[in-house]
Amino acid sequence: MPSRTAKSAASSKRGELALIRQIRSRAQIRSRTGKSACPGLALGIGDDCALLRPRPGREFAVTTDLCIDGRHFRLDWHTPESIGHRALARGLSDLAAMGAEPVAAFLSLGLPSPLANPPGRWSASWVARFFDGLLALAADYKTPLAGGDLSETPVPLADIVLIGSVPAGKALLRSTARPGDLLYVTGTLGGGAAALPHFDRLAKQSKPRSNGLNPARIPNRLEPLLARHLWPQPRIAQGVGLRSQRLASAAMDLSDGLSTDLAHLCDESHVAAEIDPALLPIHPGANLDYALHGGDDYELLFTADPNTRMPRKIAGVPVTRIGRILRARPGRPTVTLITQHGSQPLKRQGWEHFA
Amino acid sequence: MPSRTAKSAASSKRGELALIRQIRSRAQIRSRTGKSACPGLALGIGDDCALLRPRPGREFAVTTDLCIDGRHFRLDWHTPESIGHRALARGLSDLAAMGAEPVAAFLSLGLPSPLANPPGRWSASWVARFFDGLLALAADYKTPLAGGDLSETPVPLADIVLIGSVPAGKALLRSTARPGDLLYVTGTLGGGAAALPHFDRLAKQSKPRSNGLNPARIPNRLEPLLARHLWPQPRIAQGVGLRSQRLASAAMDLSDGLSTDLAHLCDESHVAAEIDPALLPIHPGANLDYALHGGDDYELLFTADPNTRMPRKIAGVPVTRIGRILRARPGRPTVTLITQHGSQPLKRQGWEHFA
Repeated sequence: MPSRTAKSAASSKRGELALIRQIRSRAQIRSRTGKSACPGLALGIGDDCALLRPRPGREFAVTTDLCIDGRHFRLDWHTPESIGHRALARGLSDLAAMGAEPVAAFLSLGLPSPLANPPGRWSASWVARFFDGLLALAADYKTPLAGGDLSETPVPLADIVLIGSVPAGKALLRSTARPGDLLYVTGTLGGGAAALPHFDRLAKQSKPRSNGLNPARIPNRLEPLLARHLWPQPRIAQGVGLRSQRLASAAMDLSDGLSTDLAHLCDESHVAAEIDPALLPIHPGANLDYALHGGDDYELLFTADPNTRMPRKIAGVPVTRIGRILRARPGRPTVTLITQHGSQPLKRQGWEHFA
Repeated sequence: MPSRTAKSAASSKRGELALIRQIRSRAQIRSRTGKSACPGLALGIGDDCALLRPRPGREFAVTTDLCIDGRHFRLDWHTPESIGHRALARGLSDLAAMGAEPVAAFLSLGLPSPLANPPGRWSASWVARFFDGLLALAADYKTPLAGGDLSETPVPLADIVLIGSVPAGKALLRSTARPGDLLYVTGTLGGGAAALPHFDRLAKQSKPRSNGLNPARIPNRLEPLLARHLWPQPRIAQGVGLRSQRLASAAMDLSDGLSTDLAHLCDESHVAAEIDPALLPIHPGANLDYALHGGDDYELLFTADPNTRMPRKIAGVPVTRIGRILRARPGRPTVTLITQHGSQPLKRQGWEHFA
C-alpha cells in the first residue's frame, strides 16, 4: 500500500530529518541567547514532549491557529518570511488578548513533497526563509520555538500553538463585558484588509512567483499599507498593560474583522454593543468598510468601566473609544451602527481571509 | 480576490460556526461530567485562549502531532471514529513516554468544503463520528478538549496538541540512557503495521467507502489484529508507573518503528544499543520485520539500570527485556541486531505510515 517507492520514501524521510535538525539547531541558538529571557522552558525540541515550568501563582494560556495556503496566505503574494511572521503573529495576538506573556511556541508544518530537493518552491531556501520570518518575530517577543511536527501535505500549512503565562484568575476574557462599559480599540483598523486589492493587482501585473510579490514591484506610496498586512505586530505589551493596570473589563483580538469579532464578544458576555463610525481610527488607505469588516488587523478590542480613566496610549500605541456596551434585549441586534438617522444593525461580515 | 462568491463564503462560515458550537457543546458536556477529574482546566473553548492551572511542584509536558489523510490515515480504511481515536492516541502516547498525566487536548481540524452540507464525506455525520472516536478516548483518559481551530483544507487533517502534567524535574527523557542499561518494551510489537496488508486487500475487495472499511467485511480471525491498528491504547498508566516507581532510566514511545525510534533514543543519549531478536514480544499475526520496523504500536521503549528489579507487568501490561545499551564507539553501528553468527547493524527502516 505505500504509494511511493521505498527509495523515494527513504529520501523524503532523510529530507525530513535534515530539516528537523536544521530547525532544532536554529531554535536552540535562539533559546541559548535568550536563556535568561525564557526561563519557563525546561526542555525544548528533541524529546517526545517539551517541558514548561510554570511560575508560582500563574496560569498557562494556550491557543492554536491553523494557516493554510489560499486561505490565510497566498504563495504569490506573501514572501516566505511574511508567512512565517504572520503565522506566529496570529498566535501571539491571541495571547495579547488575554493579557498573557509568551512562554513558548510549537509549530506543525506541512509542506508538499519534495521537502528537501529543488527545483520548486519547497526548496530548502523557501523553508529557511519561512523560519527567518518566524524566528525573527519569536526573538522580538522572547518566544522560544519549543517543538512541533513536520509532514508532507498537498498544500503548505502551518499550525501554530502559543503558550503564555498570566497571573492566576487575572486573564482578560471575552465574557466579562457589562452594559454601560465603553468600547475601545488599540491602533488603527482596516489596514490589514485594505492592502489585499493592491496585492491582487500587483500580482496580476507581475510574473507569478512562488516566493511572494517582488518587493521591487511595490510602489513606495503603497509600502506602509502593504507592510501593515505583511508584518502585523501583536499587541502583547498593550494586553499586559490593560491587564496589569486593570483598565479593561473584557478583551479579545481583532483578527476576523470588527463586525464579526465584536459580535463574538457580545455573545460571550450576553450583551449588545453600538459603534459610532465617526470615532473609528481608520488606517490611512483604508475606508469604513475595511475598518468594520476587514480582518488581519491584530489590534485589541476591549471594554472598560465608564469610570476608568483611560490613557491615550498604552505601551506606545494609541487607544480609541469607538462605542459602548448595551444590555441585550429581545429584538435588539447584537451590534448596532450609529447613523445620521438613528442606528442600523451591523451584520457579521468579517473577512474570511482569502476564501 | 475572494475566489468564491460572498454567498458561498457566508454559507461556509455559517457551517463553520455551527460546527464549532457543536464541538463546544460536546466538549463541555465531557468536562462537566468529569469536572473533578480535570481540575487543571480553568477555561475551555470559547475565548482567545484556554487557561490551564498548574498543580504546585509540577511541569507541563507539551506535544503536537499532525495527522494527514493518505499519510497517517486513509479514508477508505479507517472509520471516522478510528481516525479521531488514533489522532488523540498519538498525542497521549507522547505524554506516556514522559511519564506525564494528561491535562488537556487541543485540536486543529482541516476539512474539505463543504463543511456542513451533504452529500459527500464531509457530511455532519462524518465529523460527528470523528468526534465520537476522539471524545470517547478523551473520556477514558480524562482529557478535556480545551480548544483548537477549524479551517477548510484540500484534504482532511488533524493537528492534535496534548498538554500533560509531571512532577518538576521527574519527566522520563530520551537522553538519559547509560551504557550497561537493559532495554525493555511494554506490550507487543509489530501488530500496528502487520494489519496494513489486510486493510489493503480488504479495501480492494470492497466498494470504495469514504467511511472506512465496513466492519462486516472484516473476517473474525482478523478482528484482533485490525483492532490493534484501529484502536491503539496509549500507555499512560505504564509511563506514570515507570516514572513514579523509578524503574526507567530513559523512555520514549514507539510510533515510527523500533529500528527508527531506538536509534533516536541512542542519538539523544549518545549511546549505542543491541537487540536480541529472540526476545522480541512479536504480536500474534506479525513477524520479525514488522516488530523491528513496523510503526503504529504506541508501546513504550525504555531503559533501566541492570540492578533495577523489573516487575513482569506494569499497570497490567507485560514488560519484556529485548536488549541492552552499549557505549557509542567510532565505527560501531548505533543499533545492532544479535544473530546466530554474531551481530549485524540494524538500519533505520521505520515505516513512514502510509507514505
